[in-house]
Amino acid sequence: MSQDPLVIFTPSGKRGRFAVGTPVLTAARKLGVDLDSVCGGRGICSKCQVQPSYGDFSKHGVTVADDALSQVNAVEDRYDRVRGLKPGRRLGCQATVQRDVVIDVPAESQVHRQVVRKAASAKPIIMDPATRLYYIEVAEPDMHDPTGDLQRIKHALATQWEIPDVTLSPALLPVLQKVLRKGGFKITVALHKTDATAAPQIIALWPGLHESGLYGLAIDLGSTTVAAHLVDLDTGEVKASAGIMNPQIRFGEDLMSRVSYAMMNPGGEVEMTRAVREAIDQLTQDIAADAEVDTNLILETVFVCNPVMHHLLLGIDPVELGQAPFALATSDALSLTARDLALTALPAASQIYILPCIAGHVGADAAAVALSEQPGQQEELTLVVDVGTNAEILLGDTTRVLACSSPTGPAFEGAQISSGQRAAPGAIEAIRIDPATREPRFRVIGCDLWSDQDGFAEATTATGITGICGSGIIEAVAEMRIAGLLDPSGLIGSAEKTGSDRCLATGRTHEYLIFDGTAEGGPKITVTQGDIRAIQLAKSALYAGARLLMDTRGTDTVDKVVLAGAFGAHISPLHAMVLGMIPDVPLEKVTSAGNAAGHGARIALCSLAARREVETMVKQITKVETAIEPKFQEHFVNANAIPHATDPFPNLLTHVTLPDVSFNSNGEDSGGRRRRRR
Amino acid sequence: MSQDPLVIFTPSGKRGRFAVGTPVLTAARKLGVDLDSVCGGRGICSKCQVQPSYGDFSKHGVTVADDALSQVNAVEDRYDRVRGLKPGRRLGCQATVQRDVVIDVPAESQVHRQVVRKAASAKPIIMDPATRLYYIEVAEPDMHDPTGDLQRIKHALATQWEIPDVTLSPALLPVLQKVLRKGGFKITVALHKTDATAAPQIIALWPGLHESGLYGLAIDLGSTTVAAHLVDLDTGEVKASAGIMNPQIRFGEDLMSRVSYAMMNPGGEVEMTRAVREAIDQLTQDIAADAEVDTNLILETVFVCNPVMHHLLLGIDPVELGQAPFALATSDALSLTARDLALTALPAASQIYILPCIAGHVGADAAAVALSEQPGQQEELTLVVDVGTNAEILLGDTTRVLACSSPTGPAFEGAQISSGQRAAPGAIEAIRIDPATREPRFRVIGCDLWSDQDGFAEATTATGITGICGSGIIEAVAEMRIAGLLDPSGLIGSAEKTGSDRCLATGRTHEYLIFDGTAEGGPKITVTQGDIRAIQLAKSALYAGARLLMDTRGTDTVDKVVLAGAFGAHISPLHAMVLGMIPDVPLEKVTSAGNAAGHGARIALCSLAARREVETMVKQITKVETAIEPKFQEHFVNANAIPHATDPFPNLLTHVTLPDVSFNSNGEDSGGRRRRRR
Repeated sequence: MSQDPLVIFTPSGKRGRFAVGTPVLTAARKLGVDLDSVCGGRGICSKCQVQPSYGDFSKHGVTVADDALSQVNAVEDRYDRVRGLKPGRRLGCQATVQRDVVIDVPAESQVHRQVVRKAASAKPIIMDPATRLYYIEVAEPDMHDPTGDLQRIKHALATQWEIPDVTLSPALLPVLQKVLRKGGFKITVALHKTDATAAPQIIALWPGLHESGLYGLAIDLGSTTVAAHLVDLDTGEVKASAGIMNPQIRFGEDLMSRVSYAMMNPGGEVEMTRAVREAIDQLTQDIAADAEVDTNLILETVFVCNPVMHHLLLGIDPVELGQAPFALATSDALSLTARDLALTALPAASQIYILPCIAGHVGADAAAVALSEQPGQQEELTLVVDVGTNAEILLGDTTRVLACSSPTGPAFEGAQISSGQRAAPGAIEAIRIDPATREPRFRVIGCDLWSDQDGFAEATTATGITGICGSGIIEAVAEMRIAGLLDPSGLIGSAEKTGSDRCLATGRTHEYLIFDGTAEGGPKITVTQGDIRAIQLAKSALYAGARLLMDTRGTDTVDKVVLAGAFGAHISPLHAMVLGMIPDVPLEKVTSAGNAAGHGARIALCSLAARREVETMVKQITKVETAIEPKFQEHFVNANAIPHATDPFPNLLTHVTLPDVSFNSNGEDSGGRRRRRR
Repeated sequence: MSQDPLVIFTPSGKRGRFAVGTPVLTAARKLGVDLDSVCGGRGICSKCQVQPSYGDFSKHGVTVADDALSQVNAVEDRYDRVRGLKPGRRLGCQATVQRDVVIDVPAESQVHRQVVRKAASAKPIIMDPATRLYYIEVAEPDMHDPTGDLQRIKHALATQWEIPDVTLSPALLPVLQKVLRKGGFKITVALHKTDATAAPQIIALWPGLHESGLYGLAIDLGSTTVAAHLVDLDTGEVKASAGIMNPQIRFGEDLMSRVSYAMMNPGGEVEMTRAVREAIDQLTQDIAADAEVDTNLILETVFVCNPVMHHLLLGIDPVELGQAPFALATSDALSLTARDLALTALPAASQIYILPCIAGHVGADAAAVALSEQPGQQEELTLVVDVGTNAEILLGDTTRVLACSSPTGPAFEGAQISSGQRAAPGAIEAIRIDPATREPRFRVIGCDLWSDQDGFAEATTATGITGICGSGIIEAVAEMRIAGLLDPSGLIGSAEKTGSDRCLATGRTHEYLIFDGTAEGGPKITVTQGDIRAIQLAKSALYAGARLLMDTRGTDTVDKVVLAGAFGAHISPLHAMVLGMIPDVPLEKVTSAGNAAGHGARIALCSLAARREVETMVKQITKVETAIEPKFQEHFVNANAIPHATDPFPNLLTHVTLPDVSFNSNGEDSGGRRRRRR
């Protein structure tokens, strides 16, 4: 008796012998090969497409004959004619094994496919979605065996997919029967599991085979902005991204003023919760419209946020977060529904996952940065700085990870800056000041030309020149320091002392004129002494937080710095270092990770395994509480100077000379040493 | 070395030896003795009170000395002074074992105590509540170990009560921190389990030791009336009962007209769902106010209802229940929350349990009747008839149980009756007609006198005489038949033929005058030919359903009849049998069970084990579908006569003589043979 044919799957290398006539999908399942199927082998969903290889495979020790798989059958032929199969592709549920064969499972046919992320350094996401689709054929009702429709759906899942003990979201009770009948008792259900071993719940259902996909939102709920990615839960692809201002700004620009608002105004936390939920609803509708995706297909949302936003999203008064010991109501990850959060733009059964918080001041956003940037897997000591109204700071390598947050305030996002604005067309995002002439040139968002290049005026007619965004103000202050317009204490010099008539007197202080559009009815864009003070406060808080982690780790230097945050990608490493936002490292060791918190949210959205990973990870992170560490204050004061009063910046000084000027002759206080809390 | 003291608990008889100094509560727990405790042995809740016995116990082989337990300690003494302990009682957590001892656990100290029900025949309820209280002392927050408050609560439950893996209802997130701080980190939590092995969920919490109890609602959601019991979940005691009209009546009096309303009016099912939920909210507020119980303490609600009400409560369009094959959306028991059903009078985390449905026409109300009346445990063949707008009918003994429902319509509840009204003060509830004079006498609700007794007029001045309720109309029709005013076909005779001038002509038919209050501005109360027809339709449907079950069982007789239903207790067995509502049995074999569906709801409210029992029971019941059985129609037609066209009533005729009259001389149709569906 001859042996059964050998079937070898690539890229997994899994192999086994199967009787002639075994469908390829069956063989794959028996071997545990990662081959997708929604329709359960009925030849209609096309998810199980495979690519047989023919010829000699010496490394596998097989030769694959042309007739190794069965001929194309009627189902496959019809599918190919109607929908089209790529050349060489077969439907795994229809093609059967006839002789030894090597079968490649292309990436798009794998459930646990890898999704490459934009940042070159980033680990790919391995898809492991919490929600998956299953097509079932349900027994029709029978008066003589009067079970409910739901019970027959459960029976179908148990017998056709070997998934027992399924529950139904109560929100779906009203639609169950209509969908079942519209589909002629053939339906697709979306099953959600909170973890790999949990009993799955039906959270959506459609008549027939559902082919319009499933989507999820990864939301970075920041103090100032709410940023969302709409992600295809099948492919992991980002279909659209959008942002919206956090409307809670009207209750207080930074977190501590929102906590105060809740303390001073009975019901204030309820107002703020309502405001942010409405904003999320709006954002959901906007991003879905942008991507032309039905909001009913958004079945999962992952939130990352700082602890105060975390509590306000959940409807919890944040008052405890405003005072020691900064007790969180709950620190573990949460699995909820859209109904629980009264998010009306999403289906009621849509699932919500909120990453765990690390501590009372170190939130789920920091956890998300840790998941995205994996400081605990770095060989070099890595400082990750997520710049926002509240900065999340992580320091670590394979031996240990530390985390803190620091109240930078919204200056880096262009708020509290006289000509500040959010990053939008017309905003100055880059600036250079000639050290000799002390004349500026700049670039605005929406135009690739510098302001001293030909055609700039015409190219910016549409947008105008409207203000300075976060990356622009960082560059402006740093360039003023390099050009000798600003002394190390942060004082702007007078026209007389600097020799630049762009240094205008305003009362007892000065401001530097970047652009005067008043003749054309536009703005006059300057950097004022107040702007400098705001930036100094922000950057001191950032640096002091990082320095505190370095103290705890017992080091004065780090090996590399990762700048993250919504606008982290736009910050010039050189200028950040001139400002003293970050510790001195070789410039090439400063990299940008973009919105790492948002990326972390996306990873958790695509992968149950990643959710378990971050839940474990946060328990291993050493939390450092900036608010109670006496050294924080000292670090904060020393960091006020530009770049720093005491810490050396040897790497920086190989790139740039910082003039040793001082404009402190008129009694102006030499630093913004007020301590601010969130 | 001498042996450790022997501890014997009564009534369980459990015994064991424990080291000197072991608290009685600890000994009880180790032996699995059912001894309650909320505070966990801290001497503050008094739930663990025990009664030591002293002297010789030959049957146990021990002599108990006066110093068998430790002396009263400071905690116990303070408790006794402040709260008072019954003589001889000790706190089980404070009293320690010193020598051999016999300890009685009084009923009120048992978790699984028995609750005796009113009906003498009814099995007692064994308390096994799904929700129980636990007092815990929670670690205060610590900045250096920044876990959330919830995580420390979970830790306290795991270490102080050995209850791991607790979850928190999301609805409680907003109040968690305030309660914890108000209680100085000492709180009581209510833990709910959907079944004995499920992970418990915190569904309420209070500062300190919570001593105001827990309550539940057992709701019988009928087509015409919604009846509720408010039950103490600790003792099982009914604190208040209340009823309200089902406001869906405005969309249709019987179930089929409500199904039609939903079919004919887009969104009609949404309107009906809203109406019934509002009524439940109103009933909840009324009954809580009546019992002076805070609605926030109502943590569980059990619903029983017919399939149409089941679907409308859940927000499911009942259209499928209006047509073969009468498919239920879901038939199994449901565990939900008040939030899921948008019941706003209850706390959002309050738990809802809905009993399983038996079939598309045999609902959770029939399941509740089965749970209450236990036909499957009867040695005699027992017919249980739950009379309402839709009658639930069960027939069974220890060998087998059958069930069906039958669309009686609301006539038995006084609706569709010309002078009908619901059972309220002023309603005629009993009536006798003298067979010789054919003069009536009657009693009204709110007065114990008959209308021909002295003082009746004065006694009924306050209420008036306002109409006839369900039990009154049954007696009126039966008495008219006995008095020869009504012939077997259901025709009312003329004054001429009956010799009674109370038989008034109204067009081609007649009506019988019971009371004429028009001279005093009151009503004229008569039984019209139309009323007789309505009662005939209703009783025929009831009898035909019972007869169908008897056919299926293969019998022409039953051993006993249990009349159940909201007004089941008020129906006179003799009159019901004269009417032919129920099959002929010896009169003493007709008993009343009161609102058996409501009782079943109460049993399920008090006991998790009972929920599992009814879930198993419904799977074993044989369902009979009246709508598709051709014999139902035949039984219905034969049952139209009073008492019956073909079936003999030998037991009945030993008690009463039924005159052999006929008034069918003027061509009036001799029966209301229209077939009506729900």
